[in-house]
Amino acid sequence: MHELRVFALEGIGEVQPGDDLAAMILATGVRLRDGDILVVTSKVVSKAEDRYVRADDREDAITAETVRVVASRTRNGHTMRIVENRLGMVAAAAGVDASNTPDGWILLLPLDPDASARALATRLREATGHRVGVLLSDTLGRPWRVGQTDVAIGAAGVHVVADLRGTLDHGGRELSVTVPCVADELAAAADLVKGKASGLPVAVVRGRGDLVGDLDLPGAASIVRTGVDDLFRLGSDEARAQGYDEGYAAGIRSAGDPSSDIRSSEGAS
Amino acid sequence: MHELRVFALEGIGEVQPGDDLAAMILATGVRLRDGDILVVTSKVVSKAEDRYVRADDREDAITAETVRVVASRTRNGHTMRIVENRLGMVAAAAGVDASNTPDGWILLLPLDPDASARALATRLREATGHRVGVLLSDTLGRPWRVGQTDVAIGAAGVHVVADLRGTLDHGGRELSVTVPCVADELAAAADLVKGKASGLPVAVVRGRGDLVGDLDLPGAASIVRTGVDDLFRLGSDEARAQGYDEGYAAGIRSAGDPSSDIRSSEGAS
Repeated sequence: MHELRVFALEGIGEVQPGDDLAAMILATGVRLRDGDILVVTSKVVSKAEDRYVRADDREDAITAETVRVVASRTRNGHTMRIVENRLGMVAAAAGVDASNTPDGWILLLPLDPDASARALATRLREATGHRVGVLLSDTLGRPWRVGQTDVAIGAAGVHVVADLRGTLDHGGRELSVTVPCVADELAAAADLVKGKASGLPVAVVRGRGDLVGDLDLPGAASIVRTGVDDLFRLGSDEARAQGYDEGYAAGIRSAGDPSSDIRSSEGAS
Repeated sequence: MHELRVFALEGIGEVQPGDDLAAMILATGVRLRDGDILVVTSKVVSKAEDRYVRADDREDAITAETVRVVASRTRNGHTMRIVENRLGMVAAAAGVDASNTPDGWILLLPLDPDASARALATRLREATGHRVGVLLSDTLGRPWRVGQTDVAIGAAGVHVVADLRGTLDHGGRELSVTVPCVADELAAAADLVKGKASGLPVAVVRGRGDLVGDLDLPGAASIVRTGVDDLFRLGSDEARAQGYDEGYAAGIRSAGDPSSDIRSSEGAS
């Protein structure tokens, strides 16, 4: 694990609905090896799967992809919604994207990115005889830090986290809470060679074959952490507004019934 | 930018307070080139800078490093605090860390990671005659996703974001909101070869020399985004509790004065 090569595949043209991505990857002439991990920009998978929607229907499409709104902000008359989408990802505009698409069209994320990754990995393993892994990447912003990084939204045949719990650090102490999300780190590394504007949607990461495994390993869906474990399940403004309304109602009730004092927010459900 | 090599430097021993990291890196025999980016685990910088604190003083140390508590959770009697620290980073335990430290000791983050990176880059440029960049990395959790990834908390001579605003996508449309945080992606790529338990605290990323520039480029402090732009400046529970208390007080006031109805949280400051 001390050296990694990361290279983009050249010669993959514009992807059209119905295209066979595995065939396009193999047609580049890349000589895959056991342990190679291919990182494929999810956008080209969306294109091959014909996930196009008319740009006029963008807001409806975002709403359709949204499970719940996490936070939103209106600035200069434009409302930006950060939502949890049907894949459990928390993303601006639910991951619906208009860059690198034909005029008048936008692209939804693949219907089931883990299934798409698995189909691609299966094809590539069969065609090459090599045990390769596949990640689908997308570009996500994050709280508290400027800009975006690429993360894995689909995975097949790759350990998405390197669970170090129980292993020892350099000084012999247990690395109790360290669970590197290697799938996201691989996606980030691949973005450094793919870029956004260069027409290079596929990269190979070579040198971490220890992370490649069977095709029934948990997919990228297992990276999602929402629900009760999520300390940031709601934006600060939204949570505060919700608490305010609850507190206001309780204050009214309490004023009408002096024996009741439920001032503490602990009383709210 | 189509191929990257990422390799860890072997032979850097245990780092002691006062050690000269630049000399230790050069002593590995690495032949640096123009455009190389060195990613150094911030922990070894902390060690060289003698940022040790007694483990008994851990809670006090976290408090001292904390600017404000963003969220906290108590489970099994143990309270985990996610705080904004003096560097603007939002991190569990303020980034105070006990792994890979001698028994009985913990390590604070470097006092000024950008300054440490700059000092190291200056030394390495002078010694080698090559224009190299330096990042200091740390391991951070993130909302909504399992596990941690390495990010850049110090930077010198490296463009920390690749600002694509104004550039065109593959289809000729402007990439209006895309600002890849390449420093964090470089740190993530380096983690894939350094690991956590392997005693390999320094990696070289070769192949993105276009990101290397003058030593007075903005450091990793410029990656921090807190304040009004931060939709998640407070954990959901904390924000809700704050809103509840404000709403409760407003409800009491309103009940005492029927002419006032400030039910909407918009009225709260």
